[in-house]
Amino acid sequence: MKEQLKQEDFSANQTDHYPSRLDTVPKVMARRDPVVYSEWTIDSPLTYAQTESYAHNGFLTLPDILTSSEVACLQRETRALQDGVGVIDSELLVREPGNGALRSIFKVHQINRIFSRLACDHRLISVARFLLGEAVYIHQSRLNFKPAFRGKEFYWYSDFETWHVEDGMPRMCALSMSIVLTPNYGFNGPLMLIPGSHHKYVACVGETPDKHYIQSLKKQEYGVPDDNNLQALAEAGGIETPTGPIGTVMLFDCNTMHGSNSNITPFPRSNFFIVYNACSNRLVAPFGRKPPRPDFLADRGMSGTLPAFEGDSA
Amino acid sequence: MKEQLKQEDFSANQTDHYPSRLDTVPKVMARRDPVVYSEWTIDSPLTYAQTESYAHNGFLTLPDILTSSEVACLQRETRALQDGVGVIDSELLVREPGNGALRSIFKVHQINRIFSRLACDHRLISVARFLLGEAVYIHQSRLNFKPAFRGKEFYWYSDFETWHVEDGMPRMCALSMSIVLTPNYGFNGPLMLIPGSHHKYVACVGETPDKHYIQSLKKQEYGVPDDNNLQALAEAGGIETPTGPIGTVMLFDCNTMHGSNSNITPFPRSNFFIVYNACSNRLVAPFGRKPPRPDFLADRGMSGTLPAFEGDSA
Repeated sequence: MKEQLKQEDFSANQTDHYPSRLDTVPKVMARRDPVVYSEWTIDSPLTYAQTESYAHNGFLTLPDILTSSEVACLQRETRALQDGVGVIDSELLVREPGNGALRSIFKVHQINRIFSRLACDHRLISVARFLLGEAVYIHQSRLNFKPAFRGKEFYWYSDFETWHVEDGMPRMCALSMSIVLTPNYGFNGPLMLIPGSHHKYVACVGETPDKHYIQSLKKQEYGVPDDNNLQALAEAGGIETPTGPIGTVMLFDCNTMHGSNSNITPFPRSNFFIVYNACSNRLVAPFGRKPPRPDFLADRGMSGTLPAFEGDSA
Repeated sequence: MKEQLKQEDFSANQTDHYPSRLDTVPKVMARRDPVVYSEWTIDSPLTYAQTESYAHNGFLTLPDILTSSEVACLQRETRALQDGVGVIDSELLVREPGNGALRSIFKVHQINRIFSRLACDHRLISVARFLLGEAVYIHQSRLNFKPAFRGKEFYWYSDFETWHVEDGMPRMCALSMSIVLTPNYGFNGPLMLIPGSHHKYVACVGETPDKHYIQSLKKQEYGVPDDNNLQALAEAGGIETPTGPIGTVMLFDCNTMHGSNSNITPFPRSNFFIVYNACSNRLVAPFGRKPPRPDFLADRGMSGTLPAFEGDSA
């Protein structure tokens, strides 16, 4: 199935298979791409049940991927990045609207050696390559901090909708991995996902304003699904808030609808996100017909193309 | 213990036992009042374990108090109140900052016959009278709606701190009952409570501005505990988010620190709150030395004094 798709893609990567923000009325269409691009075999880096669950729900929680000493090291690096935030290019930093608290650091895999190694770690890449069916590169990485007491919500969205319209990602052949760096409780604004939502594409209304990303990283106003379709997705699939101890890896498809509530608790929530994109799915001109967003949000040069490892099944 | 306290109280109700908003530095003091004012007996309306749990944690969940037909009736009345909101005195309505969605209707026990009957229901009052050790009256009632998609958080606070400073409630001898009218999930901004926080009183900083309630019902800025003390309370007691099916009654002490996160899910959250105060704890002049808040926020005439029922143990 994948090979057929690829042949079609190479000649058709400039075709808009997922139009959005072109109409005044929201529309829903079926996904036109696979979710799992490889055939499962006994050598696959996920079990059959894990693979099926990811295909069905659009996300998967992987406990016990990292050792406790690795996690401790990541936590030290995270604190060092937070403490030394003054030396980081301010373009890579996003702050909370209102109170200015640090919300995200982008491009972490290129500014920090430890996170760079993690993003290239065989245990993560082998899973990404298996699910996406080919060699992958790093589309984006970021540390997300949901501050204690005054952490604001991230509204619902499909990553793919934004990446397609604003960055020019042609097809749904990318995924995110979120690595839990502080305990994610049910009450400190954890990631919420709508199971099964990745099978449908909610085209949003409204044209994207110029340089939308400067505002949208703080509060998204375009590329936001409408209430009715969101309600239909949540009523069909429910809402899940996978939680897990520090070091847990949460994996989700680029089109899985997700968001998170605010955090008024004294317990901050930190996660490291890496987005892997298939090499054949490299970015073209944004389908929203605006200039592309900066490189730290969407790698356009494939600087992070990752080598195949011996023994990989994909 | 209660009798002794009452004698002291009658001569001392004008004494400020819980000063707050008078200093520039937050202070914590121990609670100076009992939590459970009655001795438990076999005839008490709560079990011994329930009574102990309430005394220890400052809250208690009571399932199965209301029948399903009673709950269905309350839901119908709630919808009727929402639909007919245009005929309700606008002073009784609080709307979300920003989007104007209906957030609360106050004085519900005086504007709706069904909620009036519920607030006077023997099953609820017997518990309030047992815990507070004497006859009670309704200090406040409200329907709280946390809208779907865009419901905002309620920041942490102790009800008592506000009721003491802004309304003139002398002692900690009041409690709230929250009746669940739509499913309270972990993810739709449920009530969060800090177990054990009712044993300490966090005096807040800053003088209360005039007519503070008009803003504070939308977004509280005074009477807000400081970060350090909040963190200490949450690290000592943790955070609990009691959830339960429709009709569950959640009971909490007037000084239990509580709040709730925002709600971006398509599932609105509605609860009916009734606050019972002990008759001997009736309001005096506000300890914040400002004019008292309006009657719909704090009954000053004891119009709702509730009769003793035969067979009540308290």
